[in-house]
Amino acid sequence: MHSVGRRQFMRHAVSSLGVASAFAMPWTIAAGTAVGSWDETVDPETADLIFRSKAPRNAEPKLGKLAESWVTPTTQFYIRSHGANPQIIPDQFRVSVAGLVEKPLELSVQQLIERFPAAACTCTVSCAGLRRYEFSKVKPVGGVQWEEGPIGNAVWSGVRLSDVLKSAGVKASARHVWFDGADEVRDGGHSFPFGGSVPLSKVMEDNADMPGVLLATHMNGQPLKADHGFPLRAIVPGYIGARSVKWLRRIVVSEAQSPNHFVADAYKIVRTGTPQEWDEAAPIYRYPVNAALCSSVTQEGRILLKGYALPSGDKNCSINRVEISTDSGNFWVEAALGDETGDYCWRLWSAAVTIADAAADVCIRATDSLGNTMPETVTWNPKGYLYNAWHRVPAKKLLN
Amino acid sequence: MHSVGRRQFMRHAVSSLGVASAFAMPWTIAAGTAVGSWDETVDPETADLIFRSKAPRNAEPKLGKLAESWVTPTTQFYIRSHGANPQIIPDQFRVSVAGLVEKPLELSVQQLIERFPAAACTCTVSCAGLRRYEFSKVKPVGGVQWEEGPIGNAVWSGVRLSDVLKSAGVKASARHVWFDGADEVRDGGHSFPFGGSVPLSKVMEDNADMPGVLLATHMNGQPLKADHGFPLRAIVPGYIGARSVKWLRRIVVSEAQSPNHFVADAYKIVRTGTPQEWDEAAPIYRYPVNAALCSSVTQEGRILLKGYALPSGDKNCSINRVEISTDSGNFWVEAALGDETGDYCWRLWSAAVTIADAAADVCIRATDSLGNTMPETVTWNPKGYLYNAWHRVPAKKLLN
Repeated sequence: MHSVGRRQFMRHAVSSLGVASAFAMPWTIAAGTAVGSWDETVDPETADLIFRSKAPRNAEPKLGKLAESWVTPTTQFYIRSHGANPQIIPDQFRVSVAGLVEKPLELSVQQLIERFPAAACTCTVSCAGLRRYEFSKVKPVGGVQWEEGPIGNAVWSGVRLSDVLKSAGVKASARHVWFDGADEVRDGGHSFPFGGSVPLSKVMEDNADMPGVLLATHMNGQPLKADHGFPLRAIVPGYIGARSVKWLRRIVVSEAQSPNHFVADAYKIVRTGTPQEWDEAAPIYRYPVNAALCSSVTQEGRILLKGYALPSGDKNCSINRVEISTDSGNFWVEAALGDETGDYCWRLWSAAVTIADAAADVCIRATDSLGNTMPETVTWNPKGYLYNAWHRVPAKKLLN
Repeated sequence: MHSVGRRQFMRHAVSSLGVASAFAMPWTIAAGTAVGSWDETVDPETADLIFRSKAPRNAEPKLGKLAESWVTPTTQFYIRSHGANPQIIPDQFRVSVAGLVEKPLELSVQQLIERFPAAACTCTVSCAGLRRYEFSKVKPVGGVQWEEGPIGNAVWSGVRLSDVLKSAGVKASARHVWFDGADEVRDGGHSFPFGGSVPLSKVMEDNADMPGVLLATHMNGQPLKADHGFPLRAIVPGYIGARSVKWLRRIVVSEAQSPNHFVADAYKIVRTGTPQEWDEAAPIYRYPVNAALCSSVTQEGRILLKGYALPSGDKNCSINRVEISTDSGNFWVEAALGDETGDYCWRLWSAAVTIADAAADVCIRATDSLGNTMPETVTWNPKGYLYNAWHRVPAKKLLN
């Protein structure tokens, strides 16, 4: 294995981040310094978020701000945690690669960056619980009562997981890759890391612009914030956020999916929730097509609506059409789509409408290039995942 | 572990089989005698079946005979194999129990029967490819072109897998149980046993009359025939037949589902069939509600129809209603349901109808006690599994 040295490291930082400030790498700070916190102190930069809980930290942006830019500012990006932010000592942090590999690895973040080519992508990360509160209106479900905010689009940079695995030498029987975080989740008297799992075929689905899975050190040109997984996280374009494990400490190549609670037990769609059903069901991987109305402004007698639309998390899939109805879903008009678009990325939209019936609902539905359309209704499920029915907002809310 | 000895063994055989002939146990034949065959010679008792292939052996009964009795005679029971019948030397045959257990076991069939309480159940086994040829009419799919025959209801007896696992001592982290057969499947230059996997929660879902999983030595009161898995097979009530592994030689308790090809790669519903989709999808476990018209006889100006209806493979679920339409699905009448019924069992039905329009289709649809109803159409899938749309037969076929 060759070491590319400081020079290529700097080129990496420049090419993938495009900003000089990227050189302020927190993992070069003094030995033994702890980053991250176990308390409920909120990073002042995230003070503008709506905190659904502070221990663990779960927050989403105010909806009105979400559709203002295609790349979501880090300060407006939702935070989803299952335990306290782990105490990270940057110069001691290592990520291990084990399981069905010829040569297990244990690497610092600096080594990762020095040994492997720089890679970056822009993609949307979306929580499986996005819009969960709409399920709860039908029948209450537990978990964070997310509204339309736990979704965001960011520029991620780091190295390709495929390059790391190729270097470790994946054995022929390998089929899945597990991720464990450095956090500690407490559940039913046990304590364990948050974990994820992705098929190896997804990891290896690289092309020039889009890694199958990125090992990200940076978000929007800056080293990851503690709340977003400093110093290293997985980014899995097209998959629910839960697979993009933060504070990534352990990578295991296996024949089977991870037995971690958040793969084997949670993040599944079941009907009634018997143990047998949980064990039979597949983990959720890709997110479905979705959309939301984020803001409205009255302008010259019309109402200007803005929002986001997310294509399903499939390869080569983008938003084709966003439709608006101001009469509860009878008549639909097409919204204008933003110019910025990309694989595994949301697309912003806008529409100027008039509202004739204040008692009606304004409805939003998106359709992607694979023909997936948001349905009128979604079957309730016990954990409240993947709500993607038409986004409905009472017209009178927009007429104030 | 106590050995119950010859006396309890005989009581077992009597109570569970109820027939004297059960004592002719093939595994008491002389040492070294091979049972089963690698050639294409068909057991003369199965000569009445329609063979879709002879190597491996895949056969289904003539449909007209299938609804004649609630318990399907063994000679009329479909045969599904992925490799040649293995060469079994009865006195050398052992089944192993390994993986996440305190005490691994290796037992002869005789030991299984002596050590564990006798158990029996009547349940329907149904191939995931039942009615596959109807998918092929839409767009050809590979695999055996099964019609309505690869389904049957039998009395199975042996011992409960739960008792065996309790004796081995299941570790706390166990979640799934793997089954490997003694057969040898050749695929892509590799050779491996046919394998299955069931959640541990399903195995442990025992009640007095219905084991979660049965380790069956007998079918309809006779030792298993070679084609049905002699000397030992799994029977998993409610699950597709592929999980009821024949010639059962290896049981592994694990955190994860079996990596066997027939769990990890085949027997899944996918949309297009990319490697990523296969790896993401759950294995098929339970079969869906289904039904078929099996025979028709003209009687005093009316046509007497008979068939079977299968409830979905859920716990406490039975057939509630079978409806017949003689006008392609506009007007429906209820069929009479057979008296014989049971958990995880099909139900026979009959209806006397008149047909006004020879150009119409006669349609059959069943509804189970959990409210599952056969849909009018089913989305095509690349491997042609779980076809359960209304069974349609051109009326003119019944008017001859």
